[in-house]
Amino acid sequence: MDKKKVPYSLNSKKVADATREWLHKRGVNITEIAELVMLLQKKYYPNLTMEECMENVEKVLMKREVQNAVLTGIQLDILAEQGALLPPLQDMIENDEGLYGVDEILAFSIVNVYGSIGFTNYGYVDKLKPGVLERLNDKSLGPIHTFLDDIVGAIAASASSRIAHRKQAEREQELGEESAPDTTR
Amino acid sequence: MDKKKVPYSLNSKKVADATREWLHKRGVNITEIAELVMLLQKKYYPNLTMEECMENVEKVLMKREVQNAVLTGIQLDILAEQGALLPPLQDMIENDEGLYGVDEILAFSIVNVYGSIGFTNYGYVDKLKPGVLERLNDKSLGPIHTFLDDIVGAIAASASSRIAHRKQAEREQELGEESAPDTTR
Amino acid sequence: MDKKKVPYSLNSKKVADATREWLHKRGVNITEIAELVMLLQKKYYPNLTMEECMENVEKVLMKREVQNAVLTGIQLDILAEQGALLPPLQDMIENDEGLYGVDEILAFSIVNVYGSIGFTNYGYVDKLKPGVLERLNDKSLGPIHTFLDDIVGAIAASASSRIAHRKQAEREQELGEESAPDTTR
Amino acid sequence: MDKKKVPYSLNSKKVADATREWLHKRGVNITEIAELVMLLQKKYYPNLTMEECMENVEKVLMKREVQNAVLTGIQLDILAEQGALLPPLQDMIENDEGLYGVDEILAFSIVNVYGSIGFTNYGYVDKLKPGVLERLNDKSLGPIHTFLDDIVGAIAASASSRIAHRKQAEREQELGEESAPDTTR
Repeated sequence: MDKKKVPYSLNSKKVADATREWLHKRGVNITEIAELVMLLQKKYYPNLTMEECMENVEKVLMKREVQNAVLTGIQLDILAEQGALLPPLQDMIENDEGLYGVDEILAFSIVNVYGSIGFTNYGYVDKLKPGVLERLNDKSLGPIHTFLDDIVGAIAASASSRIAHRKQAEREQELGEESAPDTTR
Repeated sequence: MDKKKVPYSLNSKKVADATREWLHKRGVNITEIAELVMLLQKKYYPNLTMEECMENVEKVLMKREVQNAVLTGIQLDILAEQGALLPPLQDMIENDEGLYGVDEILAFSIVNVYGSIGFTNYGYVDKLKPGVLERLNDKSLGPIHTFLDDIVGAIAASASSRIAHRKQAEREQELGEESAPDTTR
Repeated sequence: MDKKKVPYSLNSKKVADATREWLHKRGVNITEIAELVMLLQKKYYPNLTMEECMENVEKVLMKREVQNAVLTGIQLDILAEQGALLPPLQDMIENDEGLYGVDEILAFSIVNVYGSIGFTNYGYVDKLKPGVLERLNDKSLGPIHTFLDDIVGAIAASASSRIAHRKQAEREQELGEESAPDTTR
Repeated sequence: MDKKKVPYSLNSKKVADATREWLHKRGVNITEIAELVMLLQKKYYPNLTMEECMENVEKVLMKREVQNAVLTGIQLDILAEQGALLPPLQDMIENDEGLYGVDEILAFSIVNVYGSIGFTNYGYVDKLKPGVLERLNDKSLGPIHTFLDDIVGAIAASASSRIAHRKQAEREQELGEESAPDTTR
């Protein structure tokens, strides 16, 4: 009866903590993602620091939508490694099948939260696979990262969008303009 | 070596067959989805037949993106039923957590293939849960259909979009107009 | 030269102010949008107040992506009213053509910022056209609101998502749980 | 009265023809888009011909969603050139403002029709701006192509996705496999 009044809902800290923990267990650290951000943004903001990049990655990881995508994607990677999926899904994820696009869809659900200005950055790093993405995408190394490589690229693209919004706010402040910045994200 | 020249790629018939088989095993038949389509479209096309609705559902199920979403969603439902997911993802999917939106994301990857005119129909059936969706969404029945109910609604919305494009082509033909219909989907 | 160092970028307050002003000029006020939010959410949060609904609509309107969609959509509505678009685009927007879905696409760019949990609410109000949406959608009244009705529905759906995230944070606080709420939006 | 029974709907050939005509008037030809496709795909299909690339671009342009995005985007570019938009929208489109992402949103509505496997290709060409995209993106040349450059990149990415689906079908045919290819698009 009381159960009806207090419906199930997951504690937000557990979801946030699991996200950090799973990324770590799958071998991805915040610094590596921040390096992708730096690669994408240093051209536009020469004074951008690694500290800022890391801080923005951290903030992206606080979004519930991002956490949902990270947990779901890593779970499917792990199950594929264990051979625990039903064929033909097992085959598609295990082999990072070209015509299977659910990994890109999860990645996009991350980018979308920070608006369309991140689309281009996502596609760019996903194609070139710099830094950590090269390692995640190396099929000879054993672990299956069909979802994770796209997800990490999406986190970096989202952090880049976040920086673009904040740098605009800073610029307006320097110019002494009245401002209504969109920095509540 | 030869393996390099003939890269892995999954036979399309296996993916298509598995999609049909999994829907059937999870208790969803084409007729029920067609009934949702009829519900959505009979107001606009009074002469629409159940046969047409079923044919359009069948065509939607031939799309690779649709098959990918169906297989991935049902797989996650099954694993949640078995308690085989890691917490807190297990808890979120098992309880159809309100702030977990990956089910809607997979559903939307289906609708998107048929264009934005399906967005509204998807949201409408997903909110009202008519027909088969009521059964899929009934948490007291045992099976977990966190993903499947959204996916079935998305298939019905997509078939509705497909019908809208085809009816326009028919209308132009009746009017004897020169035509360039978008019916290759 | 200096121009290179201070590239063009629009003052955020001007964009925010124009958004509010254009909505007002097109006859939409915040209270009406808040009423849609109340309609969508009172079932889940019986204690929800109109004040909270209005506050959440205000916050949604502070997002740059939302402002971009509002301004672009209203501009196209106005130009269609003036007959200033080239055929056949003029005809499609003037008549709210069923196979023209760019209005839904702009609406969705708003909903996306608040995650996939808003998809269903958007589709629902867009189909049923309650309250202000009925007036905006009434083709007999003169003004063209092909874009605006979808956009207003999307703002209401986004405010509903925002509320869902915040109510979860409140619930955790009441339970005295450790918390990591996603309320920075 | 009869008007009620035969509701307005735009002749599909007029929409298709206007799309081709507007692209031509804005200085974009099919061959240039096909060259982007070749650039994106020759690595995967060494025997791909320019004829195939052009044919696939033509097929993408037959989709109603693509036509809607092309017409809407080009219309906004033209109005911005004429200074006919209201500030601050005029300023944002005229200057291809970094935080204005409606151009990317329209581009994405094109890519989505061909599924998520096109996301990466879109982002890649949109970042590198090869071939025709360099010219469209050159702000010193006079015409405003804030929307058109993203749209052309999206058409090329979509044609690339279409090719990927068809090449898989060809491969299965060569292997003498039973097949259920997704080539009805």
